[in-house]
Amino acid sequence: MTSSPLTAPAGFRAAGVTAGLKASGRPDVALVVNDGPLAVAAALTTRNRVRAAAVDLTRRHVADGTARAVLLNSGCANACTGPAGRADAEAAVSQTADLLGVAPTDILLGQTGIIGHRVNQQLFHNGIAAAVAALAADGGTAAAQAICTTDTVSKETFVNTGEGWSVGGIAKGAGMLAPALATMLVVLTTDAVCTAAELDTALRQATAVTFDRLDSDGCMSTNDTVFVLASGASGVRATPAQLGEALTSACRDLARQLLSDAEGANHDIAITVRGATSQEAAVAVGRAVARSNLVKTAIFGNDPNWGRIVAQVGTVPADVAPFDPAELAVTINGVTVCAAGQATATPQVDMRARDVAIDIDLGAGAAQATIWTNDLTHAYVHENSAYTT
Amino acid sequence: MTSSPLTAPAGFRAAGVTAGLKASGRPDVALVVNDGPLAVAAALTTRNRVRAAAVDLTRRHVADGTARAVLLNSGCANACTGPAGRADAEAAVSQTADLLGVAPTDILLGQTGIIGHRVNQQLFHNGIAAAVAALAADGGTAAAQAICTTDTVSKETFVNTGEGWSVGGIAKGAGMLAPALATMLVVLTTDAVCTAAELDTALRQATAVTFDRLDSDGCMSTNDTVFVLASGASGVRATPAQLGEALTSACRDLARQLLSDAEGANHDIAITVRGATSQEAAVAVGRAVARSNLVKTAIFGNDPNWGRIVAQVGTVPADVAPFDPAELAVTINGVTVCAAGQATATPQVDMRARDVAIDIDLGAGAAQATIWTNDLTHAYVHENSAYTT
Repeated sequence: MTSSPLTAPAGFRAAGVTAGLKASGRPDVALVVNDGPLAVAAALTTRNRVRAAAVDLTRRHVADGTARAVLLNSGCANACTGPAGRADAEAAVSQTADLLGVAPTDILLGQTGIIGHRVNQQLFHNGIAAAVAALAADGGTAAAQAICTTDTVSKETFVNTGEGWSVGGIAKGAGMLAPALATMLVVLTTDAVCTAAELDTALRQATAVTFDRLDSDGCMSTNDTVFVLASGASGVRATPAQLGEALTSACRDLARQLLSDAEGANHDIAITVRGATSQEAAVAVGRAVARSNLVKTAIFGNDPNWGRIVAQVGTVPADVAPFDPAELAVTINGVTVCAAGQATATPQVDMRARDVAIDIDLGAGAAQATIWTNDLTHAYVHENSAYTT
Repeated sequence: MTSSPLTAPAGFRAAGVTAGLKASGRPDVALVVNDGPLAVAAALTTRNRVRAAAVDLTRRHVADGTARAVLLNSGCANACTGPAGRADAEAAVSQTADLLGVAPTDILLGQTGIIGHRVNQQLFHNGIAAAVAALAADGGTAAAQAICTTDTVSKETFVNTGEGWSVGGIAKGAGMLAPALATMLVVLTTDAVCTAAELDTALRQATAVTFDRLDSDGCMSTNDTVFVLASGASGVRATPAQLGEALTSACRDLARQLLSDAEGANHDIAITVRGATSQEAAVAVGRAVARSNLVKTAIFGNDPNWGRIVAQVGTVPADVAPFDPAELAVTINGVTVCAAGQATATPQVDMRARDVAIDIDLGAGAAQATIWTNDLTHAYVHENSAYTT
């Protein structure tokens, strides 16, 4: 039996089944179980103040740094559902805990789909039972499929550290989303030996330079969660640095897969801001440019429109990102189109490839950062307007 | 001879001529002259750090609270043009001052059009001479036409206060713009008697609740300027309160005209946030919702998608806008679709009219504010991607 990427690290089983929560009839309930010996866990959740029940539950249950399993469903985000939605989440987790013979507080929950609707309890109940029955050492791929919403492909990753332990992962979603669907869920696994504090630190390091720098359409979801479970089954102690590097590699690969599958996008855009006084300044400038509809439509039109880029750079407050507008330089796909804040001779820029590299030099310092985004296309408008709740 | 709105207040002449700065051959140079007896002036300019030469010149020349004329051109923003662009701006203003027999520092400048290109000096020189020759007491309408870029109609307004003095105005542009064109220029005139400080205060009051609450696509231009000239020709002293009210009325009317002409828009959206702890909190929430592409595409699809609205409300930090997500209510076109943070019975919402009213109640206080925006449509993507610099 070949193992899937998520369950390739030792000590994990997973499943993905069809409960009927999605009208499409595709798989919609996933379960990832950590068989130990360790039950170390960490999770990062959306910063949105309007949070789904699953997010609050996960925050409470992972606070002690331990978890035995992550239950996930697609087809319904169970967000903005009030006390009834919270009770639904508790019931699903209790059922899973009973079937696995663990405490409910050792189960984490990720839900994704339409906002404002409760999950059909009977269908979910049956789906959970089926998922527990289907748990397998090669079940990661089925789990990856069961968390998809409008994804056109499921996303999996595997990082072999060469140190006797590895990292696996699955992900769903991206910023450019079908209407009212919550966005991103990620589950990572590792068989390294580590503490909860080390795992939490490594997860924060990894997401800060990967998922946190992916800004597809600037819309923050109510359900985003990145889970990581460590089984310790390799028996090998990972150093904090190794753990951070391995999780970063896994997250970077999944982030790229999310970007490539963003709905309606024709171009993947990497905005690198250099010459900044701090990494925070570089991120702020990159994010401002990534959120400009005028920049994103220009890229859709294969137009290296640097005027829109520098106009957007200029919107970042001076206390956030100090720079002199007369020092700005912009290079698109290797061609410098603006230097010293003015037009260059404007040579031809080839914009036909899917990948577009925008390089902005603030000329103010030595820090840099890269933000990834997409272009704004007719397909984005169509996919996000043609649907009625 | 009938007077145009801009020159209806006593003491003003204006002109609009064709200099050939636009490929379309439409009028592109405008001049508005204040014949006094007073020469009181104020101006508010873009907060963008990447500013056109005209913006810096206007800030310097209006600092003393006096101006005799505003020179404007469309077809070229003269932004990101470095020292040469600054010299071009000075030359245009000096020529205008010489022809009018006033000091160069009493001329203000507004320019709009493509970023990164200098204005053709010979064409502009001839255009300025033609504009001075064409100055007339009914020239306001021609001036309004000459500042248009992608506007489908020119914008004019007139407010008769019934106190013996009035306010006139012209405007161009809107946030949803053709590529690389700078955005908004407004010229207001009044024959009231007032001081420069009073005029400046009234202008800030007026723009804070009108143009500053118009957020068409979140993109801040390099050239935005609102000018106001007071001639005192009525001989009537306006109280500060009267002046603020009259300018606010004129600005509100022009802001509505800009919104209605925003490119590619199918819906004008008024987002009213009430129940806020402060007006700043209400503005922050309204602006966040106005900038959500997921909300804007949903409205284009006539979809009363409140899940996307509350998800966007939740992105506003708690220190900016305190509220409890469990208290949120959303009403769309008079139908309450979300109450106490949850779905209501979801009655039918009729979204077919051009005007859409989104009412968000934070349930946290007594302050409120309204932000105006547009939907995000195929036409917006087309008009902003089909053009190549």
